[in-house]
Amino acid sequence: MSQAFDAVDVIRTKRDRGRLSPEQIDWVIDAYTQGEVAEEQMSALAMAILLNGMDREEISRWTAAMIASGERLDFSSLGRPTADKHSTGGVGDKITLPLAPLVAACGVAVPQLSGRGLGHTGGTLDKLEAIPGWQAALSTEAMLAQLRDVGAVICAAGSGLAPADKKLYALRDVTGTVEAIPLIASSIMSKKVAEGTGALVLDVKVGSGAFMKSLDQARELARTMVDLGTDAGVTTVALLTDMSTPLGLTAGNALEVRESVEVLDGGGPADVVDLTIALAREMVAAAGVSDVDPADALRDGRAMDVWRRMIAAQGGDPSAALPVAREQQVIEADADGVLTRLDALAVGVAAWRLGAGRARKEDTVQAGAGVELHAKPGDRVKRGQPLLTLHTDTPERFARAQETLAGAWEVGTDAPERKGIVLEEVR
Amino acid sequence: MSQAFDAVDVIRTKRDRGRLSPEQIDWVIDAYTQGEVAEEQMSALAMAILLNGMDREEISRWTAAMIASGERLDFSSLGRPTADKHSTGGVGDKITLPLAPLVAACGVAVPQLSGRGLGHTGGTLDKLEAIPGWQAALSTEAMLAQLRDVGAVICAAGSGLAPADKKLYALRDVTGTVEAIPLIASSIMSKKVAEGTGALVLDVKVGSGAFMKSLDQARELARTMVDLGTDAGVTTVALLTDMSTPLGLTAGNALEVRESVEVLDGGGPADVVDLTIALAREMVAAAGVSDVDPADALRDGRAMDVWRRMIAAQGGDPSAALPVAREQQVIEADADGVLTRLDALAVGVAAWRLGAGRARKEDTVQAGAGVELHAKPGDRVKRGQPLLTLHTDTPERFARAQETLAGAWEVGTDAPERKGIVLEEVR
Repeated sequence: MSQAFDAVDVIRTKRDRGRLSPEQIDWVIDAYTQGEVAEEQMSALAMAILLNGMDREEISRWTAAMIASGERLDFSSLGRPTADKHSTGGVGDKITLPLAPLVAACGVAVPQLSGRGLGHTGGTLDKLEAIPGWQAALSTEAMLAQLRDVGAVICAAGSGLAPADKKLYALRDVTGTVEAIPLIASSIMSKKVAEGTGALVLDVKVGSGAFMKSLDQARELARTMVDLGTDAGVTTVALLTDMSTPLGLTAGNALEVRESVEVLDGGGPADVVDLTIALAREMVAAAGVSDVDPADALRDGRAMDVWRRMIAAQGGDPSAALPVAREQQVIEADADGVLTRLDALAVGVAAWRLGAGRARKEDTVQAGAGVELHAKPGDRVKRGQPLLTLHTDTPERFARAQETLAGAWEVGTDAPERKGIVLEEVR
Repeated sequence: MSQAFDAVDVIRTKRDRGRLSPEQIDWVIDAYTQGEVAEEQMSALAMAILLNGMDREEISRWTAAMIASGERLDFSSLGRPTADKHSTGGVGDKITLPLAPLVAACGVAVPQLSGRGLGHTGGTLDKLEAIPGWQAALSTEAMLAQLRDVGAVICAAGSGLAPADKKLYALRDVTGTVEAIPLIASSIMSKKVAEGTGALVLDVKVGSGAFMKSLDQARELARTMVDLGTDAGVTTVALLTDMSTPLGLTAGNALEVRESVEVLDGGGPADVVDLTIALAREMVAAAGVSDVDPADALRDGRAMDVWRRMIAAQGGDPSAALPVAREQQVIEADADGVLTRLDALAVGVAAWRLGAGRARKEDTVQAGAGVELHAKPGDRVKRGQPLLTLHTDTPERFARAQETLAGAWEVGTDAPERKGIVLEEVR
């Protein structure tokens, strides 16, 4: 590519509220990936984008340029439709675990390339690694073989997909430029489109435990991503879902695997079951399959069969006992009444502080650590009844987790309005 | 200093339109100077400042922190008041050359630490280096001795003054964050305050050849700098002066030295004489001297005496012939009438392209190159009369200089309104 542009001119264009041309975008992403545009130039551009925005065409081109920076997977040889899901991250969000085998049981292949957790939201790979023997890393060939044989694979994303995004994400993380909807949307969508899925369902979380605290922000992010997917030829829909309180009754790696298996076994908390089925229906429909209801495949055990094969295919033992933390501490209700509030962010941070998450990429996580909920907002509680159980291998962590949870829940007299887990759809 | 802050938090504060606290500012400037805040973090912060601004207290603290990053000079042992001038840069702006000796002739010492030119405005040191033998670099001791003996010194700023600014300026240059008034003002004022002058007069240029194209921008920059100087205990005033057409009749290093000597000799173009005297009167008054009129010191040759001693003290020969470019090319008027416009920026760029300026720091300049004007806006011209003479040692440069000047001047019938060189004062 000829050096037709200058980084300072590109930065100035966006700084002065102009539109980046397709050629400027292609050049700046390519030159940044090659190291010709410096980190300090890209961070200034990212801040200008955060503050001045990008329009649909700019974001679409930016995403396409990030996809073009690396390889693209191709599932056309599978002979089956494919669908994937992306969640913007929430507390207790284990949905991928029951969802991938459930959708596969409906005849739609699920290539789920996942990441690890950082901060108060857990990572899907961290959760599955609580299962003895399970391996996250697969070659592209092994992934394709498992998709063909089992129909579902959850594995680590290779470094070849959208390397520009990988570099830019690390930069945004240290320069205060994470919270830009055009950059968030293009980061997510560049990886998902490069991954090669035919259909994509987005679970955009809203509330204290989510990245998007307000419905308006979540709607804008969802709309931006749905437009990007559509522009790239991927059938894309988004559900906005509630993250004011944790999803299900567990936040922590092995704890969430246990709850996911309960769901696959026909039990589990209602919100997890509802969201799993809602997302599965969207994925199956988006993949063009119309004659199967995922609720049936969950009820009759087909999803559980796929789960067992999926775990075994990656070296895991689906029947093995899951790790349990060495120490527990119970927090009790301090009054009779109705639990009116149980804050998602506080539970997420407590689980993280107990050892379920990592503060830096190089940290390890405890498989057994986390928070177990014994009541959810709307449930009646009695004074002295266990409300939360904290789990950790390292009991010196209890104090800071308790601190985090102080003020995070309330017992009152009036039951809060019950709302469904799915708040809105964006198509 | 304890690591009480985090760079991302500081960036986020400004990104989200908050005020930076004094402690945040002190920390970020110090940590950046020490290399603990990375370049890509500072550039994101600079972009957030450019787009979201800083208030007077923030700018004042930012400037103080940059001053504190290095050494401060102290002229209290001189036993004489000191005054300095800073110009924001314009085409043909050689005013420092006659001004420094003129003010010194009035009993006020002038410590003028200057820089080199980059782009279309020339640098004072580049101009003086056209004088055979003259040396820009002086030790602090030599500078103090010359101030005591001669009363005026124009030399290169040492690297010890405001090193944070030096580092930040280089970063802003490559990240599209130069054009932020808080950063421009604090960059200029941190160096001038650290330099230790007692009074400061700012020449803020307005017009096509200046950095500030509009009077409003220039006023805001002037007001910001006057406030900063006042906050730092330096008597500071600013003149807004016209830069729509070049100052004087020359743009280029030796050409401008020649014109400056004409002014010191009692001649020279009216606008250069007027501005030199206006600035000298402000400097003398700001330094607290009230019984001397610089116009007298110019007329009676005292300023010329100081000039000769000042040049000789730095190894220069004030009587030596100045370099002359090897080649000349004349541009003629194409009609009879009045010169209605002669654009400063075009003349500056032409002089630069002829070899008078540099595109990159490491380039050298031609002493003799530049543009000579034979008429100024308002002057009557005849078809075929020389309008401009281009000077260069490298005649292959004529073509691009001619291109730049196409359309840069107009001959019409109505004389443009004559305005004085000084447009406004800011105190």
